[in-house]
Amino acid sequence: MDQNGREEKVENGLDMEIADGDNNKYKKLEGEEEGEESVERIFAKQGVPSWRNQLTRRAFGVSFILSVLFSFIVMKLNLTAGIIPSLNVSAGLLGFFFVKTWTRFLESCGLLKQPFTRQENTVIQTCVVASSGIAFSGGFGSYLFGMSGRIAQESADQPSAKDIKDPALGWIIGFLFVVSFLGLFSVVPLRKIMVIDFKLIYPSGTATAHLINSFHTPEGAKLAKKQVRALGKFFSFSFLWGFFQWFFKAEDNCGFANFPTFGLKAYDNMFFFDFSATYVGVGMICPYIINASVLLGGILSWGLMWPLIETRKNDWYSAELSPKSLRGLQGYKVFISISMILGDGLYNFCKVLTRTLIGLYIQLQGKDPKMALPVDGSAPPNTLTASYDDQRRTQLFLKDQIPAWFAVAGYVVIAAVSTATLPHIFPQLKWYYILVIYAFAPTLAFCNAYGCGLTDWSLASTYGKLAIFTIGAWAGAAHGGVLAGLAACGVMMNIVSTASDLMQDFKTGYLTLASPKSMFVSQVIGTAMGCVISPCVFWLFYKAFDDLGLPGSQYPAPFAVVYRNMAILGVEGFSSLPKNCLKLCYIFFCGAILINIFKDVMERKCKKFAKFIPLPMAMAIPFYIGPYFAIDMCVGSLILYVWGRINKAKADAFAPAVASGLICGDGIWTLPSSILALAGVKAPICMRFFSRATNTRIDNFLGS
Amino acid sequence: MDQNGREEKVENGLDMEIADGDNNKYKKLEGEEEGEESVERIFAKQGVPSWRNQLTRRAFGVSFILSVLFSFIVMKLNLTAGIIPSLNVSAGLLGFFFVKTWTRFLESCGLLKQPFTRQENTVIQTCVVASSGIAFSGGFGSYLFGMSGRIAQESADQPSAKDIKDPALGWIIGFLFVVSFLGLFSVVPLRKIMVIDFKLIYPSGTATAHLINSFHTPEGAKLAKKQVRALGKFFSFSFLWGFFQWFFKAEDNCGFANFPTFGLKAYDNMFFFDFSATYVGVGMICPYIINASVLLGGILSWGLMWPLIETRKNDWYSAELSPKSLRGLQGYKVFISISMILGDGLYNFCKVLTRTLIGLYIQLQGKDPKMALPVDGSAPPNTLTASYDDQRRTQLFLKDQIPAWFAVAGYVVIAAVSTATLPHIFPQLKWYYILVIYAFAPTLAFCNAYGCGLTDWSLASTYGKLAIFTIGAWAGAAHGGVLAGLAACGVMMNIVSTASDLMQDFKTGYLTLASPKSMFVSQVIGTAMGCVISPCVFWLFYKAFDDLGLPGSQYPAPFAVVYRNMAILGVEGFSSLPKNCLKLCYIFFCGAILINIFKDVMERKCKKFAKFIPLPMAMAIPFYIGPYFAIDMCVGSLILYVWGRINKAKADAFAPAVASGLICGDGIWTLPSSILALAGVKAPICMRFFSRATNTRIDNFLGS
Repeated sequence: MDQNGREEKVENGLDMEIADGDNNKYKKLEGEEEGEESVERIFAKQGVPSWRNQLTRRAFGVSFILSVLFSFIVMKLNLTAGIIPSLNVSAGLLGFFFVKTWTRFLESCGLLKQPFTRQENTVIQTCVVASSGIAFSGGFGSYLFGMSGRIAQESADQPSAKDIKDPALGWIIGFLFVVSFLGLFSVVPLRKIMVIDFKLIYPSGTATAHLINSFHTPEGAKLAKKQVRALGKFFSFSFLWGFFQWFFKAEDNCGFANFPTFGLKAYDNMFFFDFSATYVGVGMICPYIINASVLLGGILSWGLMWPLIETRKNDWYSAELSPKSLRGLQGYKVFISISMILGDGLYNFCKVLTRTLIGLYIQLQGKDPKMALPVDGSAPPNTLTASYDDQRRTQLFLKDQIPAWFAVAGYVVIAAVSTATLPHIFPQLKWYYILVIYAFAPTLAFCNAYGCGLTDWSLASTYGKLAIFTIGAWAGAAHGGVLAGLAACGVMMNIVSTASDLMQDFKTGYLTLASPKSMFVSQVIGTAMGCVISPCVFWLFYKAFDDLGLPGSQYPAPFAVVYRNMAILGVEGFSSLPKNCLKLCYIFFCGAILINIFKDVMERKCKKFAKFIPLPMAMAIPFYIGPYFAIDMCVGSLILYVWGRINKAKADAFAPAVASGLICGDGIWTLPSSILALAGVKAPICMRFFSRATNTRIDNFLGS
Repeated sequence: MDQNGREEKVENGLDMEIADGDNNKYKKLEGEEEGEESVERIFAKQGVPSWRNQLTRRAFGVSFILSVLFSFIVMKLNLTAGIIPSLNVSAGLLGFFFVKTWTRFLESCGLLKQPFTRQENTVIQTCVVASSGIAFSGGFGSYLFGMSGRIAQESADQPSAKDIKDPALGWIIGFLFVVSFLGLFSVVPLRKIMVIDFKLIYPSGTATAHLINSFHTPEGAKLAKKQVRALGKFFSFSFLWGFFQWFFKAEDNCGFANFPTFGLKAYDNMFFFDFSATYVGVGMICPYIINASVLLGGILSWGLMWPLIETRKNDWYSAELSPKSLRGLQGYKVFISISMILGDGLYNFCKVLTRTLIGLYIQLQGKDPKMALPVDGSAPPNTLTASYDDQRRTQLFLKDQIPAWFAVAGYVVIAAVSTATLPHIFPQLKWYYILVIYAFAPTLAFCNAYGCGLTDWSLASTYGKLAIFTIGAWAGAAHGGVLAGLAACGVMMNIVSTASDLMQDFKTGYLTLASPKSMFVSQVIGTAMGCVISPCVFWLFYKAFDDLGLPGSQYPAPFAVVYRNMAILGVEGFSSLPKNCLKLCYIFFCGAILINIFKDVMERKCKKFAKFIPLPMAMAIPFYIGPYFAIDMCVGSLILYVWGRINKAKADAFAPAVASGLICGDGIWTLPSSILALAGVKAPICMRFFSRATNTRIDNFLGS
């Protein structure tokens, strides 16, 4: 802090000035218990370290340890169940405990030079998320391992040499290095649009920020203490609830996550409340319209369209296909969902682009830039209407600029290097395929980050499937389309997954006043760590277990063969899609754009009505995943609504803390539950649900 | 009301006087929202009709209809599952709706002469409970039907003619008439001891009273309205929760009532939370010490003794016995439980008797009667320390006296008639057996009413089993001991079951200011109704279904054969009990007495410590039933405790309403659920719990 002492002081002075000038507005809330108090006002006396000082050696030391730990956990889950929980919260929490213990120790020795701040905490969290994210987006359990000969033998076709690439430490690390940084650079210019202009929620990121803020809340703030206590209470509840649920989930088909709340028929169509504290919390953070949109989408798809399409079995698609085949119902789900998302994303991307260009044009002409949505934060937000918290956060979020030219240049340079390098690794992946992917990637990254900001779902693997299909079909079976598709999937997934993960982190940074510059550096370092750690961890597993990837073994890597089969299907092009699927995709793509246009028109003509128009992006997510999480979110909405009816002031003051507690408690539980899974400890009890007829059969079976 | 106008006026005047004189004490609570307001003060402006006016023709008309309805429901459940839920709440609620609709109709026609009061409501409830109680205690699904030849053929032994008595309408009605009224007369003198002196809780009775009071709450009482709303809210919640649970209970082994909350091992020993809103509510009404005692008893028996005894299988008892055989573990459960209850009951009975005799002696000597506990309410309770509600209720409860000589004379006369008549119905049941039963019956009635007051459990069937054993063994197999035992069981069950049921009603009456005289008359009429209705309903079933009582049929009457087998075992006497059972019974009998003595000594020497000594009666109940309901009750305690810590005033004001809502909602749900069972509608889903190993087997079975 020595060299930046001046900078910090200025900040504090500035801060105090704003606080004093604004006092009247907030005075009436002082002393009151249930008003919405300013978080940043509580932290106002704490300085914000300069961005350089947010990047400490201890932070990266802890990040490295946690990255290795989380990479092991994610890798193990990759290779067993194939389902990866979000580890954001665990990263934030463990980072806090590690550094806090360290600083306490130093403090007691009188050696502490720099206090532990929430910004530093955010930096750790960001670094760990970036690093362990690669263990997922690296595709060690999906596309990358799907290229291997071992998986090829399990899959449907007769593998030829050109369709196989066995894993080796060298090329994996190289591959990851050339593809993983692109997402990062594509995220940087979107940062301000997503977080400040669109004010997207990023529920997990927001919850993590609440958690980090609560850890660092200074003494003496009464309401803040109460909020921290509420967060802590619901954190514990959510954690214990996760723990309790675990006991009843001996197998995947057991437990509360399969509770047919509305009956077995509804359950078959994914309509059920799955008792997930996370999504109830997400529902409490998200605005009503998002929750309503998600539910509407769920009803439209799983309640109406899929059952209707299923009646056309044998006509539109063969009835003999496995339920997971993209030639069947699953195909409709994946592609209709993605075309709706693409429609919405493309519309918003174009809107932002147009406005930015108009804004730039007007600026260059020296006119009033009011109507433009600036991309690079050149115009400060309206300080008259924003709350103190928003003002302060926006101010700091925009202070340390990462220049747009830097982001664009970085993207272009890395894309160029990548385009040149990748065909050497995968000869099947021609350089022009890669160029095309990189041309579209920012749009898709925008879509995924936008959707994730609305609903907390990152659909990276869905975009990956799109890449498998398009590039695979383009290359064709004869020219190694299978491998080209899988490699393209990797490129795509890395970009879009990084985009959504890191945007979550930027939201966290925004709410904890971490500098975007330090976040960016942390992300770069984290990504670099991940590009080395993840392949090494995978290599360890690969060498240690000879039967890795074989069905029935300890590590079956179930999704590797799924991805390969998709690629095999993909090389046949869109003709392999089921009947009318493409037609429906067009309809939903256009529908999404039309709804957006309608919403924008209404926004100007009849604002009151506009807020009741659903968001196509939010609607599209349950198309593929199923509406069960929409029901969780609506339960969250309902709780918030009822609470607001009973006590508006209390609900406003405590709902974010309660929601964050719910999300974080469940999030932290993923850590011990993953460790239990790693250790091979399975739950003792299986809670199951049968129809009465099946139950009678089981009784007879067990009785005999 | 005409002829009693004066009486009522005096009451009102008296009431006003008390209210005025006491005003200072309560004034500070007026206008406050969360203080404990007096219920009776709210009702003070409503007159209490004289006891004659509480007994209206419309009340008995409605009672008759409900009695028939409930007799059908109970009979059906008797003959199918054999488990009868409590219908107190339904009786109160339906009584209200019937009469309210009727009075509203009359009012709109301008023909209403007498308004509908809560006392009249209580009278209906009492009458229906008395009447439909006979459908249970009449033993149509247990001892009485167990005498028939059809059941004899299913049971273990070779039936001879002297061990069989087939049902016939005539003797059943006669039998019920001579045995059912005894319980009533034995209850009357205990009334004041249980309700006023011991201040026993009778959770169901209290909840019903809260419900009835809430129906009749006059306009304008602010806190009362809030309490009624709280009651209504939790009533709905509890009802809907019961409804929701129903869907997952396709069979007896399914649903929330079998939720192994603490694991399968604990579940096997009956340690689990069964999600019963009723017992959570009961736990909220009962004092902490009762809940703690019940839990302690559960841990002592199911957590310690039964598992230990089970390790002695093959040594203490044969391992080949069915788990329900009284020669095995079940024998320990039943007889140890009952000896502990008898120990406690006998001690308290003797205590009351001694004090009464001393009090009478002192009174006859003209000395200060302060130290005596008067049996007949001759000494009014201390008006200085009691709350207004207590004063008013006690005053009215003691106003309309039923003279002790009347109760005693009634008991003696009916006992004499019964002793003379019963041997004509059952020649195997000698007159001196009956005399012995009647000599002990009041003590046992006291025990059951006392235990029910503490924990809401009536253990009538357990006392019945005791009668089977003692009288059966006394008569011996050669002299028709089987039938003698079953008949004795009937006599005993009728007395003890009536005692606890009607004491619940007296508690309800106490809390709704219903006159004991009108209650007594209502009970007499209800009992008489039941003695005719129940046999007729049974006769209908018996004649309509030829396979009634046969296993696998629609009406298997599962408990009939169980009772008969018990009787067959019983004739062999105590020698048929498993090893050391009798020894343990002695220990627990003496233990119960010693704990009571210790508690009484402590009460004088060190009062602070005395309240931590558990109650043997409460401890003994889970011995037989299992500790799961103790866990429900402790959850209720926990909720109350936490609530009290958060907001003492609110918890005090609303906890009884919330608890009553929980009990009543669940209670009312029994009605539609019984009707669903009657109509043969079964739930669609079965929620079950398996160990992981069993689940794997089931998966293989279902997969193949």
